[in-house]
Amino acid sequence: MRETDVLIVGGSAAGLTAAITARRHYPYVSITLVRRESQAVVPCGIPYLFGTLGSCDKNLMSDELLERNRVDLLVDEVTAINGTGKTATTADGELIRWRKLVLATGSRPIVPPIAGVDLPGVYTVQKDVGYLNRLLEAVAQAQDVVVIGGGLIGLELADELRKRGRRVTVVEILCRCLELVYDDDLTERAEQELARLGINVRTGARVTAIEGDGKVKAVRLDTGEQLRADLVVLSVGAQPNVALAESAGLCLVDGGIWVDRYLRTSNPDVFAAGDCAAKTSYLTGMPAATRLASTATAEARVAGANLFQLRREFPGVVGVYSTKIGDLAMGLAGLGERAASAVGLSYVVGTAEAPDRHPASMPGAKLLKVKLVFTRHSGQLIGGQAYGGDSVGELINLIAVMVQRRMTAEDIATFQMGTHPALTASPVTYQLSNAAEMALVVLQG
Amino acid sequence: MRETDVLIVGGSAAGLTAAITARRHYPYVSITLVRRESQAVVPCGIPYLFGTLGSCDKNLMSDELLERNRVDLLVDEVTAINGTGKTATTADGELIRWRKLVLATGSRPIVPPIAGVDLPGVYTVQKDVGYLNRLLEAVAQAQDVVVIGGGLIGLELADELRKRGRRVTVVEILCRCLELVYDDDLTERAEQELARLGINVRTGARVTAIEGDGKVKAVRLDTGEQLRADLVVLSVGAQPNVALAESAGLCLVDGGIWVDRYLRTSNPDVFAAGDCAAKTSYLTGMPAATRLASTATAEARVAGANLFQLRREFPGVVGVYSTKIGDLAMGLAGLGERAASAVGLSYVVGTAEAPDRHPASMPGAKLLKVKLVFTRHSGQLIGGQAYGGDSVGELINLIAVMVQRRMTAEDIATFQMGTHPALTASPVTYQLSNAAEMALVVLQG
Repeated sequence: MRETDVLIVGGSAAGLTAAITARRHYPYVSITLVRRESQAVVPCGIPYLFGTLGSCDKNLMSDELLERNRVDLLVDEVTAINGTGKTATTADGELIRWRKLVLATGSRPIVPPIAGVDLPGVYTVQKDVGYLNRLLEAVAQAQDVVVIGGGLIGLELADELRKRGRRVTVVEILCRCLELVYDDDLTERAEQELARLGINVRTGARVTAIEGDGKVKAVRLDTGEQLRADLVVLSVGAQPNVALAESAGLCLVDGGIWVDRYLRTSNPDVFAAGDCAAKTSYLTGMPAATRLASTATAEARVAGANLFQLRREFPGVVGVYSTKIGDLAMGLAGLGERAASAVGLSYVVGTAEAPDRHPASMPGAKLLKVKLVFTRHSGQLIGGQAYGGDSVGELINLIAVMVQRRMTAEDIATFQMGTHPALTASPVTYQLSNAAEMALVVLQG
Repeated sequence: MRETDVLIVGGSAAGLTAAITARRHYPYVSITLVRRESQAVVPCGIPYLFGTLGSCDKNLMSDELLERNRVDLLVDEVTAINGTGKTATTADGELIRWRKLVLATGSRPIVPPIAGVDLPGVYTVQKDVGYLNRLLEAVAQAQDVVVIGGGLIGLELADELRKRGRRVTVVEILCRCLELVYDDDLTERAEQELARLGINVRTGARVTAIEGDGKVKAVRLDTGEQLRADLVVLSVGAQPNVALAESAGLCLVDGGIWVDRYLRTSNPDVFAAGDCAAKTSYLTGMPAATRLASTATAEARVAGANLFQLRREFPGVVGVYSTKIGDLAMGLAGLGERAASAVGLSYVVGTAEAPDRHPASMPGAKLLKVKLVFTRHSGQLIGGQAYGGDSVGELINLIAVMVQRRMTAEDIATFQMGTHPALTASPVTYQLSNAAEMALVVLQG
């Protein structure tokens, strides 16, 4: 029998961050992290294995952070939890006694019920080195790849496969790729970039069957079109891993583990963070199906700090989605126009565009466009979107903090920023200031 | 006699932004902008003329923004102002009657009283196309250039001259280059980069004479060293242009035009913005000698909105300084450790470093280091510094907004950001979250 003050189940973004945070806040407790994988992959880096990086060993999470924070690592699988007796049982037959438990069991890819989905040559995107290595081999032998699902992972994967010279087609059931993430102005721009890159896209198309004879040969669409395919990758979303939570009798909601504002489950000594935990929107209070490593770590920073004393609240998910397709970086923080409409909010939009360097003749300058969304009733920022060059990565975080601090259009129009020819727009054309000013014209009009 | 509702004197960052802002807030007034230069240069772009851009015509501010905002442009020089009669006189003999006046007369380079400073071949950095073209010609014929002053402009200029193959030496009177801007961790890193680039640096060195015979030949230091020079550029700071304000009997303070929180001068119908206006620190309330185009536009957005009705307050200067030397981007927002100490504040620091992409094997990944400074008494952020790749440009603005929203270490540790392999650090190692956590360990300890 092992004993540990804190037991963390899962070693990806949420589990690792919960462990580090627990150590910072509770220097003297023992912490054990159990994960199934002998080596943990960097989850967001997975698409990049198939082009830019080329192999799994370039995308591993180092265990050095665990060692440095005195976290005991156990490579094993927790198979059952006793929430009242405060024990866990593992596949290797270990019995672990814990005082506080963190479930960071993540999610697994959804496999849609399509005929032929179990044919050899059909893969999902899994956070498992062995599986990813097999997929890498399959990619090496493929010429025609069909990616089913035009969300963030699907498009990033398609772009990487293109970089390795594969002929790639993305099939998306909705009217536009990325439609669940971004507003139409961004999805249109993304589809332009996909076309420029030579990636085939079929939107508004449902896959009726994956066809083959002992191995995948083609993907059949409801339009009747048959897409040639040596390899099919399914990327249609993920569902929380809640089997352990269920076995422990914890409450579930929306398919995830129910948690309170302190990230405690229905058993107050058991916490949950990351993809396995149910989520609520920071902005609307409604259920949110956000599955992002960044959200997982934000939750883990709350859960880890609260283990022995409630110190932090998680106010709900803001949701910050950034990506890069070809040369185009894009991001959203908070609610877009579509999401605001869907919940019945009346809103005002301000947009601004300008080169992301100044003067525009600076080498590498790209057009950077920003859209800010404010509620009409409060004038507060509820979301923003941007596309342009790589500066979008931190610019969208700047918008995210403005959302979280409930800044108004007036606050943003007058905020003091810094600018530099090689790094940003000019101070006269700085997009955030001007987008806020444009919204003010409407709000005050 | 001309008549205009709004007269703006000066066409650089402050004047242009005041004009645009006035138009947004007052759609029906007439606005006239008077500037001396037939073509206005982008002020921050000036160092880049001498390397990356190569000529002045690539660094001009377009007058399209003036046209689109129905601002009448008059290329002329205002030579006198009558603040009670509300008129202005120009060099071409125009008499202009105004209702509201904005002084955006900027600053001019300080010329230190050094022997030989008036020799041919000694230049300053001026926002004037004709002068800059002459300096470009002088650069074309020079081999050995000495830049006197190792501040932001001096170093950017030195780096650009190096790109054109010039042998460059920077002479700085303080112990380190950039000492008035950044803390030692950044100035040290900057000097490493200067050394790597092959730029000679003499710090702690005073120029005793500029030597030559009808033309500059050398620069003599107080150490006795003689630096060979075909060309000398003085970059030792700027002083406000206040002659017009003085002629109109406006109050001055610290060498600049005194303004209230609404950016009104001592004559309530006369506003001032930009380098010509005296400034106060947002964080300390003390006089601030900030001369930045970004600050100028922030002031102009307040002044322009307040012309006919007080609508905005300027809370004091935050000061956001970003730059790039070689491959190294750097930034500061608010107070550094040195500035905090100088005003007697007790503070706590949190630092974090990690690659700016993830995994670290992503191409182009650079180490990004962040330092956050919090007051001990309030736990609020009063400043931050960063160096790394180009993402520092917007990251420092993210820190700037955190300063302006008076966020605590706890707020920052739990703020929700987005991350992406090609654009940011990993969510586990995200520098702002971790620097705040490190500060909390001290604050709570």
